[in-house]
Amino acid sequence: MVVYLDHAATTPMLPAAIAAYAEAMSVVGNPASVHSQGQNAKRMLEESREIVATSLACDPIEVVFTGSGTEAINLGIKGLYWARAPRRRILVPGGEHHATLDTVEWLAQHDEAIVEWIPLDHEGRIDLDALADAIARDPLNVALVSVIMANNEVGTIEPVAEVAALAAANGIPVHVDAVAAYGYIPIDFRTLAAAGVSALSVSAHKVGGPVGIGALVLGRATTVEPLIHGGGQQRKVRSGTQDVAAAVSFAVAASALTVEQRAAALSPAAGGVEAARLAALRDRVIAGVAGVAPGAVLNGDPTNRLPGNAHFSFPGCEGDSLLFLLDAAGVSVSTGSACQAGVPEPSHVLRAMGRSESESRGALRITLGHSSTDADVDALLAALPAAHAQALAAGMADRVPGR
Amino acid sequence: MVVYLDHAATTPMLPAAIAAYAEAMSVVGNPASVHSQGQNAKRMLEESREIVATSLACDPIEVVFTGSGTEAINLGIKGLYWARAPRRRILVPGGEHHATLDTVEWLAQHDEAIVEWIPLDHEGRIDLDALADAIARDPLNVALVSVIMANNEVGTIEPVAEVAALAAANGIPVHVDAVAAYGYIPIDFRTLAAAGVSALSVSAHKVGGPVGIGALVLGRATTVEPLIHGGGQQRKVRSGTQDVAAAVSFAVAASALTVEQRAAALSPAAGGVEAARLAALRDRVIAGVAGVAPGAVLNGDPTNRLPGNAHFSFPGCEGDSLLFLLDAAGVSVSTGSACQAGVPEPSHVLRAMGRSESESRGALRITLGHSSTDADVDALLAALPAAHAQALAAGMADRVPGR
Repeated sequence: MVVYLDHAATTPMLPAAIAAYAEAMSVVGNPASVHSQGQNAKRMLEESREIVATSLACDPIEVVFTGSGTEAINLGIKGLYWARAPRRRILVPGGEHHATLDTVEWLAQHDEAIVEWIPLDHEGRIDLDALADAIARDPLNVALVSVIMANNEVGTIEPVAEVAALAAANGIPVHVDAVAAYGYIPIDFRTLAAAGVSALSVSAHKVGGPVGIGALVLGRATTVEPLIHGGGQQRKVRSGTQDVAAAVSFAVAASALTVEQRAAALSPAAGGVEAARLAALRDRVIAGVAGVAPGAVLNGDPTNRLPGNAHFSFPGCEGDSLLFLLDAAGVSVSTGSACQAGVPEPSHVLRAMGRSESESRGALRITLGHSSTDADVDALLAALPAAHAQALAAGMADRVPGR
Repeated sequence: MVVYLDHAATTPMLPAAIAAYAEAMSVVGNPASVHSQGQNAKRMLEESREIVATSLACDPIEVVFTGSGTEAINLGIKGLYWARAPRRRILVPGGEHHATLDTVEWLAQHDEAIVEWIPLDHEGRIDLDALADAIARDPLNVALVSVIMANNEVGTIEPVAEVAALAAANGIPVHVDAVAAYGYIPIDFRTLAAAGVSALSVSAHKVGGPVGIGALVLGRATTVEPLIHGGGQQRKVRSGTQDVAAAVSFAVAASALTVEQRAAALSPAAGGVEAARLAALRDRVIAGVAGVAPGAVLNGDPTNRLPGNAHFSFPGCEGDSLLFLLDAAGVSVSTGSACQAGVPEPSHVLRAMGRSESESRGALRITLGHSSTDADVDALLAALPAAHAQALAAGMADRVPGR
């Protein structure tokens, strides 16, 4: 039995979301078709959109389904940039997910964007003064600001409302990458929109829904240029036959979140029952790691972080070595963003937080989710001492001159 | 019991494809993750890619999974256009699907593309002389040619190899929209690539696979600029967490096609057992319609057409009226592309074929697929006389002056 502690890469689908997907696949009809079968499919789609909207506290018409969180981020950023032409400046922190980084870098190469990296502090939090200064240098030429709601690697929760307020004061739209945050901290789009957020990206497979569907929440008053053109589905913002079965399954996962968010509203300090449960497991991981490897550093904000995220640097160890040794012991973890895993590069997030290149190589990310239990944490902590000792030995051997 | 005769909009999923999807959803792991669970997911993904590649007679590395056929077409066309900068001309027939039309029109508005419409003959076939003339006017400035393999509305099969040969003689890449063709006529990418095709788009839900996944077949030597940036998955051409369950399900549908294509290779005249079965059903529809409405015109090439497609103009009737009356009688059909249905506009395909605006309004598309039977055709032909008489009466009433 494998112990899965990589929920930030993808979390297991909820059994009810699998069942709903399987059932909906038997329904025949393209929701764009006029006949009764098409209209039945459309009804299922729109009911699903309403449920997803409730989980994000936005209006159903504001939910634009996409094929992934990555597509949603691309649509949010490119769509706003193109719609705001001829403005050229994009302000973005350097520790964003690659879906944001690679998108803005492409806009710089291909569409004359001027990308300006806003610094992070040593806990991964955006420097609001630096953002204010950057805006003030030439506010009329800023096309957009994009910021992650909670960092997918180190787990730090960003001051999104404060970012939005600075931008809104200058009439600048803000895109929020909420892919890692969704399901772990409450997202209230109406409140964020009032603060100045224009668009927000999420993905279903990070919350127990299926891979292959995400959403861009697009405020009613916001105009974006489409990324994918065609039949004109979804306010003409995202064309392509709409995936009813995926939306139905996404809605089942979103509906579970809504229950959790209501609990969070009743108990804001704890952030909800499930969040409190995950935070307790995470704190067991943090205490356990400190016991095994007293030199290990918890990265990111120690308290204002995702409840399921524990991210460490292990001085003297390669993160990859630890990952492989734990994998051999039946425990799945990550060195950082799954999308970059397999590429033995230092974490760009840790680099943006001011860490050295060698410090940025030794990281290990342990992320918990809905299926995580105390037994999973027990298994990790049982396997860690041997893995750590072996990784440390390998790391020291690497440093022997001549080897 | 509803009789479904709108397979071109979407075709029912094969029960085996539903079962495979449901089973694969329980597998946990992001194929980009390094640990064993991620690598297991990756193995499932790559095995599925191989099966899909076999159905298209291409190499697995040439299959780029997308979120839809529409996304594949957008990636093929925009990706080639951007990669071929500063060339500006795009040559495309006027009867293409909206995924192509709206994409090239956006490139004209946004990226200085010069779109030149290649005429169609009265059966919907591209005018090869006009294409040759257009290329010859300024061959070095042609970024790409895009052509549909078989028209999604009127069913005409296009001379794709001849188009490719004209373009290849001038070093111009060709994108082929094979969404409507896939599953109905054999697609041999290796042969097409040898003729000069660079990229080819398909969708899983038109062949009994799931909605939410398509593919761009991208020749090994072809470079495209990505549409969606991020983690660098799939040759860095299409980023985003890869949808293993959808790929597994797509592969089940593709594998059924491969069996059919092998039969077609043994019996090229009939185009395969299933194609012959569909063509016989379609010919029953055509004969039946001629009996009920002798003035009805079969649109598209009468013989060189998709085996499942029957598309008619009914003089004196609105296509929408016929559609609604048949729907009330329990028969699902379409006026044309599902993506444009609901919008009471004349068919742009019929307009491109030289028909008048009023002729382009009366069309009805009846499309057959894997689940179609003689009983379906019986039900259509039983419902058609009353529906046609009523639509004709409504059409004549509309023409009474003063009404």
